[in-house]
Amino acid sequence: MLLAQAPAGIPVLTRGDDVAAVIAPALASLEWPDGSRGLAAGDVVVVSSKIVSKAEGRMIAARDREEAITSQTVREVARRERVDGTVLRIVENPLGLVMAAAGVDASNTPPGTVLLLPEDPDASARRIRRGLHARFGVRPGVLVTDTSGRPWRRGVADIAIGAAGVRVLEDLRGGADSYGRTLTSTVMASADEVAAAAELVKGKAAGLPVAVVRGVTRLVTEDDGPGARSLVRPPEEDLFRHGSG
Amino acid sequence: MLLAQAPAGIPVLTRGDDVAAVIAPALASLEWPDGSRGLAAGDVVVVSSKIVSKAEGRMIAARDREEAITSQTVREVARRERVDGTVLRIVENPLGLVMAAAGVDASNTPPGTVLLLPEDPDASARRIRRGLHARFGVRPGVLVTDTSGRPWRRGVADIAIGAAGVRVLEDLRGGADSYGRTLTSTVMASADEVAAAAELVKGKAAGLPVAVVRGVTRLVTEDDGPGARSLVRPPEEDLFRHGSG
Repeated sequence: MLLAQAPAGIPVLTRGDDVAAVIAPALASLEWPDGSRGLAAGDVVVVSSKIVSKAEGRMIAARDREEAITSQTVREVARRERVDGTVLRIVENPLGLVMAAAGVDASNTPPGTVLLLPEDPDASARRIRRGLHARFGVRPGVLVTDTSGRPWRRGVADIAIGAAGVRVLEDLRGGADSYGRTLTSTVMASADEVAAAAELVKGKAAGLPVAVVRGVTRLVTEDDGPGARSLVRPPEEDLFRHGSG
Repeated sequence: MLLAQAPAGIPVLTRGDDVAAVIAPALASLEWPDGSRGLAAGDVVVVSSKIVSKAEGRMIAARDREEAITSQTVREVARRERVDGTVLRIVENPLGLVMAAAGVDASNTPPGTVLLLPEDPDASARRIRRGLHARFGVRPGVLVTDTSGRPWRRGVADIAIGAAGVRVLEDLRGGADSYGRTLTSTVMASADEVAAAAELVKGKAAGLPVAVVRGVTRLVTEDDGPGARSLVRPPEEDLFRHGSG
């Protein structure tokens, strides 16, 4: 069974905060149906990139937003003029992520400011994992997530942009289907699915930036692993990364 | 708290089966941490499109696969030659879904056959919902899901292609962020997130085609609603639906 819940009581983070230290008390207070509390081996701790960015001092003045988007643009993939005359730019950022406004975000930030994504979310995830290990004695998987639009689909969904100790891609190739035939092409983006599951209990409006997902032990690894960077499809494999590089 | 689990014991479906009737005994046997069994109000039952297609007789001979893909193609969005010389076509199908091979699938089907997607997955979801309501006395949300690739991201993830009684898009606009500012642009694709959460416990290799997601009662509606069709971004809003229509 998969279980996911988001603890209340996580304070607003500011520059210089140790994310693991700030979120640990709330995680420790979580109660599970079997009567246990806190974190257990095999859990995945899912952290919104927003609080990681705040802790890492990635806040800038809103008046510098367009300049920031430009600085975070490796390649413009598409653009569209909005009804109000402003331009929506969908760009590839230095992390290889293709996102509206390069992932530069203005919600849940103090007025007059916007947030850049963490500079290296995989490193952020590893740091949080180390901190949680020191406090809880178990090594949970850690995901750093952000909310992203998708071509062809309405609405946004959470994806993993940083990972430590999580098998982000679950390779079913070589396994068998229910007819005994070898599955030849299925690689699940499991970390993105965990990010999505976690979003259902976190939620922007609820102000709950962290969730714990239990029951996906198969995805949690001893090593930190290659991180969420390996979820980025390299441009040469990608049919939808047009634009000027 | 969100909980998700996939019951064992669902037999292989064949043409003419009533999906709700076939899956009901397995759903009834589910045990929940609070000691309850079966379905409760507010649950979402997530059903792989594959078993719906089988029940609806959407199986065709594999030799007709390319012809089937062509017949399911409203618009070719991209194509690429594989290393083995075959061509991968990413196309918009009659449901508005943009998918590799138009969603025509060869895994978990009897040898020599491939499966088309259900002709109207929203209607399938409504039918399953009615059947579950008749058997359980509660009206769960129902999603019909399929596995899909994504531009820019490696790996595949499950999405909702049919829905009944589920708020597929969760509109946070008008709500407030933690600084009290009105959220102006966030519409979550919640049905896709529920589909992803369910996939983590279902799984192709495990042969578990149905999951129940509990704890997202806010997404379950009395009415069947507009269905998953409303998750399809209309071509005129879409920056990534090139190709010939």
